Amino acid sequence: MTITASIPIVTPIDTQWVERAKARQLALTKPPRSLGVLEDIANRVVAIQQTSTPNVTNRRVVTFAADHGVVQEGVSPYPQAVTAQMVNNFLRGGAAVNALARAAGAEVMVVDIGLATDPAQADGLVGRSIRRGSANIARQPAMTRDEAMAALAVGIDMAHHASNDGIQMIGLGEMGIGNSTVASAVTAALTGLPPEAVTGRGTGVDDATLAHKVQVVQHALSVNTPHADDPLDVLSKVGGLDIAGLCGLTLGAAARRRVVVVDGFIATAGAALAVRMQPAVRDYVFAAHRSTEPGHEALLDVIGARPILDLGMRLGEGTGAALAFSIIGAAVAVFRDMETFESAGVADRP
Amino acid sequence: MTITASIPIVTPIDTQWVERAKARQLALTKPPRSLGVLEDIANRVVAIQQTSTPNVTNRRVVTFAADHGVVQEGVSPYPQAVTAQMVNNFLRGGAAVNALARAAGAEVMVVDIGLATDPAQADGLVGRSIRRGSANIARQPAMTRDEAMAALAVGIDMAHHASNDGIQMIGLGEMGIGNSTVASAVTAALTGLPPEAVTGRGTGVDDATLAHKVQVVQHALSVNTPHADDPLDVLSKVGGLDIAGLCGLTLGAAARRRVVVVDGFIATAGAALAVRMQPAVRDYVFAAHRSTEPGHEALLDVIGARPILDLGMRLGEGTGAALAFSIIGAAVAVFRDMETFESAGVADRP
Repeated sequence: MTITASIPIVTPIDTQWVERAKARQLALTKPPRSLGVLEDIANRVVAIQQTSTPNVTNRRVVTFAADHGVVQEGVSPYPQAVTAQMVNNFLRGGAAVNALARAAGAEVMVVDIGLATDPAQADGLVGRSIRRGSANIARQPAMTRDEAMAALAVGIDMAHHASNDGIQMIGLGEMGIGNSTVASAVTAALTGLPPEAVTGRGTGVDDATLAHKVQVVQHALSVNTPHADDPLDVLSKVGGLDIAGLCGLTLGAAARRRVVVVDGFIATAGAALAVRMQPAVRDYVFAAHRSTEPGHEALLDVIGARPILDLGMRLGEGTGAALAFSIIGAAVAVFRDMETFESAGVADRP
Repeated sequence: MTITASIPIVTPIDTQWVERAKARQLALTKPPRSLGVLEDIANRVVAIQQTSTPNVTNRRVVTFAADHGVVQEGVSPYPQAVTAQMVNNFLRGGAAVNALARAAGAEVMVVDIGLATDPAQADGLVGRSIRRGSANIARQPAMTRDEAMAALAVGIDMAHHASNDGIQMIGLGEMGIGNSTVASAVTAALTGLPPEAVTGRGTGVDDATLAHKVQVVQHALSVNTPHADDPLDVLSKVGGLDIAGLCGLTLGAAARRRVVVVDGFIATAGAALAVRMQPAVRDYVFAAHRSTEPGHEALLDVIGARPILDLGMRLGEGTGAALAFSIIGAAVAVFRDMETFESAGVADRP
């Protein structure tokens, strides 16, 4: 496929809305700033939605599934077939992201953006495959620039679909055996940090495999020489189709002024590429949680976000995003539903 | 009132249930330990409820309201009347705890355990007042030992009511202008830490008032000489009626094998007293969040809990507990609802 799309323009939030929200927070029946981060969250949602009655009731996790040629290098303890098997599991509602999304009152949409093999059944799967898995980044570019652009367009499209469906809060999810290796390569390429500082155990490799994984990432960078100042170059050379979808989803959701909830390491790699393409994206993204992957911190710096949760999670799929939906929803509920000192007849401090 | 009650016996959880839960976690379609703290939470709920299908759908925050004579010392920026005014606000559903409880699918029960003045309207208020506010701990004991025991009995009773109503997860909440001062005195008495290490800004006092508050706590300890090894002595001399209710609620809920969710600094003071009375209480309590109050950390050590959330909150009322309900609920949902590698037809690692 050679569909190309333009990168949507993202405009910064208007800080006047944040100021208005802060003023209301002070009027609510609680000591000033006593809800801490919940207040910051609500204030930013007000500015994103440009309303004094924010609403994040309609929630969706979009989970992009893709395979990665780099699994040929032996970087994961799981066979590649697990990607499609887990897609089946998502579609039947049996995976962690399904359970967490249900608990948060959210939908899960699963997008085949580049599976190597078809799942056994595909009811409910959004088929938007760009190619049957990316190439092995240890030997060649993951994909062509046109393919990367086409995958980005799929992500942007999913943001429009969600927005048209009335979704107010969009979570980033992914599934792809091998994708923590490409996310490490993207992180090293974007930040200039050495591979050993940004490569972790993914689904849980042993010490020997971790050392090998670092070498694979190093090799991917040497072979492909991605240019840090050209995010599309980084994405196409050492990225993956799932990460491209996540990048496009983030861009599209921010352009449509949706609340964007980034998941863990791999999702944040997609969001970081989006921020490098359109810096104003930062205003729309919330980091759901701090992953145990060592490269996550550097990516959080790129997107300029402090994680809401820190629960030692490293699963992906959009699980952290689904979990954080509840916290963001609660922050918005407090802002919208609380009485003021005046309306409640409560004496404020002198 | 001189009702007395015996301290209920709390039995430790059976670690065999934890081991069974761990085995199931390994069978679920996710890399081992990839859900981090969520796994620990679910495993403990399994052991508390003694079932492989845990359930925390029915949730209630019990918020004890009481006044504190120590406000005469000028330790809070808010007038004492705010306690009863906020009770009104709770009963009408307009406070932060109401909004957060609704967002988490939880009820709020408000108990007058020692208001100095009646609220303007009391529809829905559980009237179990022991006395009209505690005495000024800077000059005399907060209450008699019998009164402390009677207030404990109210808390225990609320745990039985909740259990009989089918509540599976109970949150600790409180409202009482001045109660961060008594919580600091309780913390210093229980831990032996100096007042300046465990006294904070509460609802937000300035530097001068903070320094004064430290002196008031010091004075309360000198005047009353509470015995660290006698929690009822600490409670009656430098505690408060709300804290007594929280202590009793914790004891009763643990005795009835309920999931107990501790809120911030003041609630943790109540839970810490309960742990000192019955150490097995530790097995039943989850710390909702890390408060910004400096004394909270020492109390978390006493109850042996790591906070689930760290969001810079310091509001009380049960707000943190209500927020953490969603996380605990999600952890339980994942455990109960996920497919196993076998049932989902997903290849596990070799």
